[in-house]
Amino acid sequence: MKLNEVLTVLEKVAPVALSDEFCKKFGMYDNSGIIINCGKDINGALFSLDLSENSVQKAKEGGYNLIVTHHPAIYGGISKLDLTRDPQAKALAECLKCGISVISMHLNFDAAPQGIDYHLMKGLGGDNPEILAKLDNGGYGRVYGVKSENFKEFVERVKKTFGSDRALSYGKNRQVKKVASFCGAGCDDKAIAFAAENGADVFVSSDIKHHEITAILGRGINVIQLTHYCAENYGFEKIYSRISKELSVPTAYFCDAELM
Amino acid sequence: MKLNEVLTVLEKVAPVALSDEFCKKFGMYDNSGIIINCGKDINGALFSLDLSENSVQKAKEGGYNLIVTHHPAIYGGISKLDLTRDPQAKALAECLKCGISVISMHLNFDAAPQGIDYHLMKGLGGDNPEILAKLDNGGYGRVYGVKSENFKEFVERVKKTFGSDRALSYGKNRQVKKVASFCGAGCDDKAIAFAAENGADVFVSSDIKHHEITAILGRGINVIQLTHYCAENYGFEKIYSRISKELSVPTAYFCDAELM
Amino acid sequence: MKLNEVLTVLEKVAPVALSDEFCKKFGMYDNSGIIINCGKDINGALFSLDLSENSVQKAKEGGYNLIVTHHPAIYGGISKLDLTRDPQAKALAECLKCGISVISMHLNFDAAPQGIDYHLMKGLGGDNPEILAKLDNGGYGRVYGVKSENFKEFVERVKKTFGSDRALSYGKNRQVKKVASFCGAGCDDKAIAFAAENGADVFVSSDIKHHEITAILGRGINVIQLTHYCAENYGFEKIYSRISKELSVPTAYFCDAELM
Amino acid sequence: MKLNEVLTVLEKVAPVALSDEFCKKFGMYDNSGIIINCGKDINGALFSLDLSENSVQKAKEGGYNLIVTHHPAIYGGISKLDLTRDPQAKALAECLKCGISVISMHLNFDAAPQGIDYHLMKGLGGDNPEILAKLDNGGYGRVYGVKSENFKEFVERVKKTFGSDRALSYGKNRQVKKVASFCGAGCDDKAIAFAAENGADVFVSSDIKHHEITAILGRGINVIQLTHYCAENYGFEKIYSRISKELSVPTAYFCDAELM
Amino acid sequence: MKLNEVLTVLEKVAPVALSDEFCKKFGMYDNSGIIINCGKDINGALFSLDLSENSVQKAKEGGYNLIVTHHPAIYGGISKLDLTRDPQAKALAECLKCGISVISMHLNFDAAPQGIDYHLMKGLGGDNPEILAKLDNGGYGRVYGVKSENFKEFVERVKKTFGSDRALSYGKNRQVKKVASFCGAGCDDKAIAFAAENGADVFVSSDIKHHEITAILGRGINVIQLTHYCAENYGFEKIYSRISKELSVPTAYFCDAELM
Amino acid sequence: MKLNEVLTVLEKVAPVALSDEFCKKFGMYDNSGIIINCGKDINGALFSLDLSENSVQKAKEGGYNLIVTHHPAIYGGISKLDLTRDPQAKALAECLKCGISVISMHLNFDAAPQGIDYHLMKGLGGDNPEILAKLDNGGYGRVYGVKSENFKEFVERVKKTFGSDRALSYGKNRQVKKVASFCGAGCDDKAIAFAAENGADVFVSSDIKHHEITAILGRGINVIQLTHYCAENYGFEKIYSRISKELSVPTAYFCDAELM
Repeated sequence: MKLNEVLTVLEKVAPVALSDEFCKKFGMYDNSGIIINCGKDINGALFSLDLSENSVQKAKEGGYNLIVTHHPAIYGGISKLDLTRDPQAKALAECLKCGISVISMHLNFDAAPQGIDYHLMKGLGGDNPEILAKLDNGGYGRVYGVKSENFKEFVERVKKTFGSDRALSYGKNRQVKKVASFCGAGCDDKAIAFAAENGADVFVSSDIKHHEITAILGRGINVIQLTHYCAENYGFEKIYSRISKELSVPTAYFCDAELM
Repeated sequence: MKLNEVLTVLEKVAPVALSDEFCKKFGMYDNSGIIINCGKDINGALFSLDLSENSVQKAKEGGYNLIVTHHPAIYGGISKLDLTRDPQAKALAECLKCGISVISMHLNFDAAPQGIDYHLMKGLGGDNPEILAKLDNGGYGRVYGVKSENFKEFVERVKKTFGSDRALSYGKNRQVKKVASFCGAGCDDKAIAFAAENGADVFVSSDIKHHEITAILGRGINVIQLTHYCAENYGFEKIYSRISKELSVPTAYFCDAELM
Repeated sequence: MKLNEVLTVLEKVAPVALSDEFCKKFGMYDNSGIIINCGKDINGALFSLDLSENSVQKAKEGGYNLIVTHHPAIYGGISKLDLTRDPQAKALAECLKCGISVISMHLNFDAAPQGIDYHLMKGLGGDNPEILAKLDNGGYGRVYGVKSENFKEFVERVKKTFGSDRALSYGKNRQVKKVASFCGAGCDDKAIAFAAENGADVFVSSDIKHHEITAILGRGINVIQLTHYCAENYGFEKIYSRISKELSVPTAYFCDAELM
Repeated sequence: MKLNEVLTVLEKVAPVALSDEFCKKFGMYDNSGIIINCGKDINGALFSLDLSENSVQKAKEGGYNLIVTHHPAIYGGISKLDLTRDPQAKALAECLKCGISVISMHLNFDAAPQGIDYHLMKGLGGDNPEILAKLDNGGYGRVYGVKSENFKEFVERVKKTFGSDRALSYGKNRQVKKVASFCGAGCDDKAIAFAAENGADVFVSSDIKHHEITAILGRGINVIQLTHYCAENYGFEKIYSRISKELSVPTAYFCDAELM
Repeated sequence: MKLNEVLTVLEKVAPVALSDEFCKKFGMYDNSGIIINCGKDINGALFSLDLSENSVQKAKEGGYNLIVTHHPAIYGGISKLDLTRDPQAKALAECLKCGISVISMHLNFDAAPQGIDYHLMKGLGGDNPEILAKLDNGGYGRVYGVKSENFKEFVERVKKTFGSDRALSYGKNRQVKKVASFCGAGCDDKAIAFAAENGADVFVSSDIKHHEITAILGRGINVIQLTHYCAENYGFEKIYSRISKELSVPTAYFCDAELM
Repeated sequence: MKLNEVLTVLEKVAPVALSDEFCKKFGMYDNSGIIINCGKDINGALFSLDLSENSVQKAKEGGYNLIVTHHPAIYGGISKLDLTRDPQAKALAECLKCGISVISMHLNFDAAPQGIDYHLMKGLGGDNPEILAKLDNGGYGRVYGVKSENFKEFVERVKKTFGSDRALSYGKNRQVKKVASFCGAGCDDKAIAFAAENGADVFVSSDIKHHEITAILGRGINVIQLTHYCAENYGFEKIYSRISKELSVPTAYFCDAELM
């Protein structure tokens, strides 16, 4: 396949234009799309949440000359490349050496109708959400009903579903009927107000700061902090399963167990 | 005591001018000093990392009309006060109603010579550090040697010392000889580079974001993420112990077990 | 009444969305809406241009637990509350202590179809204006015809209508047929150009700076500088008269004679 | 005299470098110095607070080919010159046509040791001030003692000294012993806090905004608002008297009675 | 003719609103329109790319009291006028002295349907372009086909057409079939990408910086750098020829041979 | 040699700290230092003004695994790498593939005591300059005397010395005694004023914009516009000659004749 043909398949799930709309409407920054174009026909694609030395190693071993990531392989602009120290520089250099192209699908995958934020909700047992940041086709940040359950049981079920023991929970035991969830590092004042206004019992997200935890608890809402990796890997793998069938080249999925 | 007399005692540990120096030299923002001045003589002081409804309740119960916090009771500027929802507004209103004054000592307590960042190092077993952000008298961000220990054992010791099971650890088992630590939410590119250049085996901080965890691991350094609360409460209580002896009014310390 | 029910009545005159439109379209800042919500049913409302210690005192005396102001009770964001010195902090604290909620209606009241800027025009004897800053429903800044009158007589009539001797006038005696008026501190380059292009004989506003006075006179237009208070209190009281009939709780109006 | 020789004499009172220091240290903007250099020897100098059509007319009538102003003849940068409407453009064009050069001495004259802010204090009866904005040699914003006097009498004396009936006064009658004064449009939060901390009974300045008047009164300080013109013309004329003796060309002073 | 009548004729070619649209849509700055209005009836108009001392001299000699320029006679805002040194100040002052009004038509003339960028294309032998910055009626930046020609011959023909030997050319000899051109200083990353995507063989513009030349050559595109003056004078004179017929006052065209 | 050892030799001519000082003192941006560190011992160094595909090709052919450039190999931060189009991405990727490290020495080489701006002056025949932007040890922008010569002859001599026919000259023939020169794209308002105040007859620089050429000519100063490449290559080669003797690895110099 041509690199652009792969991109076209990925954009069926979530066009890069969705990221542009997200950025423009909500003042965000992103760098989605083709990050490295080595100019070669694609003979196989490895999917990995991040571009890391480990994921590049897997691609090389499997003979895949494309890596598709969720987090942008380059985010803020690189001005120096130190291969003796900087793991990101090492991963990029290895791609360039080995002719591995890279596509990153970030905010568009987060906000797609069946994107990563959607799958976080599904994994937590919900559906038919109120949505915080509404886009023309998709959105981000959800509050929704779940089967009534004791908080302790809910936490245990979450750990099991997302496959990680690193979930931290805060708040007294209670019955959980309504959940607010925000994939990635999506917690801010607006997310907290949105959860409170919609009567959430539990707030689920990652990378939540201390003053945010106290603000959520202060509104009488419990907190579950998943690792960013396990919360997003869950949905990214679901998207992979769907897309891999539509690609005419071999594919594989890499999950970095160390970060779960 | 007069409110200003209490402030004078607190400033012996860490003058507010130290916060100003920190802000100016490193482009930070702070709001340390007297946050609420109710204009009354102080009859007792409760120390608490945060101004929360719980801490105000404790002050009322104990009859203390001053609360000394580490995190600024008001941080970014308040433009609306909704007592039906906003826990911060409720806590502030309760202080104003009950005549409770509030002093916050933030970046100056972080960076004081025997401040919170110093005590984090001590709790982790270190001394004689290299310092990242050097100030005229004090500083922030430390790398230092510790007694050689297996990573697993080190993690267990840390959990015990800081009294929290919520410490998350990342990285393969290894021998720990050198530690980099940054109290509060102090992880950024400079902190990571500083840890790497000084040969740290483990990076200890709070509120570390996903891409920072991967960047630290990518440099071959293990990670321990403490809760922001337990990492800073440790040192704040040490400072309390020292200061309470110098205050001529009754004092108490409030630790919010839910956040440890 | 519930606080939100009072807000609904006020928004019939001028929705907060009108302030948002004003800010977005003309690059303004505002903080209109519910400023303090004490969470209690409203048993009476005092209207006052400003939230001051005097107005809070009147509310307490009258047993009103809501104050409706024109100028935002909090404008730019508060980071410290010093009850020994700062009159704004004292007024806010007194409201919180006494359970007095506060609503401020600023730019929306200025620009409403029958708002404060409209009433300034009416008080000056005009109607059917050209409008400077046009909004979907309402606007700000007016030029209009008045009954032809000698400038000196016009000034005397204005002082009488607005009930203040503090009106300063500039410019030679002349016949006044067309007036430009801008309630509050609305004088700027655009207002001056708008007045000149529309052939105003007199420019009426408040808080006009020295270089603006010379710029207006230099265009051959006379100037009347009302106090900000008397110019806006006039229209705010008109709005009060209209709204008080629609509220099912007792109301009162407080005018601070010292500022007229 | 050469234009630069005149500048040298003016800079003995207040070097332009003092304006630069003021701007740098306190985040101000200024445009002091030679504003129009027509390239001719100076045969006479007219002093006028502003460059206006009236002042240029006076210079022409008197045969002076230099105008020295306090307020910058050009302040923010001119991009269009409309001689059919804009009085500033007309005045500048007339200078260029008639070969009249212009020097403006703004913040340096405000802050000079015997500058305009100093003379405002002297006119109000004070000396030996506390100074708000301290410069290496000079400063701005003063609080000082005066002969104890009844507020009403004080106001009458001020009107007489500064030659203007347009002085507006606020606050109850009281004894005046300490005065804070700020020439020009110098009122802001820092000026108000400075006046309060130093125990001022009266706050004297110009172009004071409504919310500033209420903030000053709320701190228990009376207010006198002079016109910007009369407050600064007073000191500018004193400086003129001193400088005119040192210039070897004829000089004159123009006071625009309409603005007093 | 009245000055506004002349403006109306000029705006038939390119309304000032076109400049506003250009600025808003593409983040540009401009100062088009009447720059000096001396308030007199226009008795003749001199057209000149720039307002310079030479062009004012020509207007005076020819008795024209209007100069129409392409480049804004004032661009960024003037704060000082030094007639002993600054040529722009001298030219402006001479206009004001002699009652010469000035109109500048900048981005609107660049982007008009038959504007300066259009004429650059025509002079280079092209038509039916792809356009980079599309406006409602007009646009800027063109790629188009030309009669196939050897690069050396193409360069010689360009020098001849535009009447200047100062054209610098870069790149190996080759056949030229497609040209990208951008009048004035229009080269930037977007222009280079646009030229490359549309298969240009030669990139023609002015004021191209070193790193831009290497970036264009690196994409396999040759470069011709015309002087800014000759590239724009070409189209400005064409527009003059068209407009002069519609003006009821005498006109002349001034071309500064030194800058060609 | 180690990469850092090579850097140390280069910093003897001009430390990277000189670039930092330049940036801080004059509000510039730079990205000097080690741009690519491949982590290998250096076996040879190619010097080239730019990192281009041609220069990387030369390094590969010569077996040099270090390229030293003047212009930063990465300037503003890279967020995408397209090897099918972008020549800079191609050059960087080729370096990473082949293990070629890159050092760029930009503003420090410009401003060094015997740096590129110094050598431009020497090539133009001058010495003992006035310096525009003075640094602790070095500076940028020079005015100096030269042997009196006819402008035409001067231009011819310059073309010969710098080895380029692309030098454009403006202004009438005259005697040249004083020259102002600014290597690279150093022309701005301050450079022009500096040249005029110091009585320059000719202004020599590169990448001069149209309005700057007219501003210089308007001040009665002639202009020579060298190509950026030939103006800086001249000094960079001189520096190379000096440094190559101090490096213990083979070196070569690459001059791209196409850009001279």
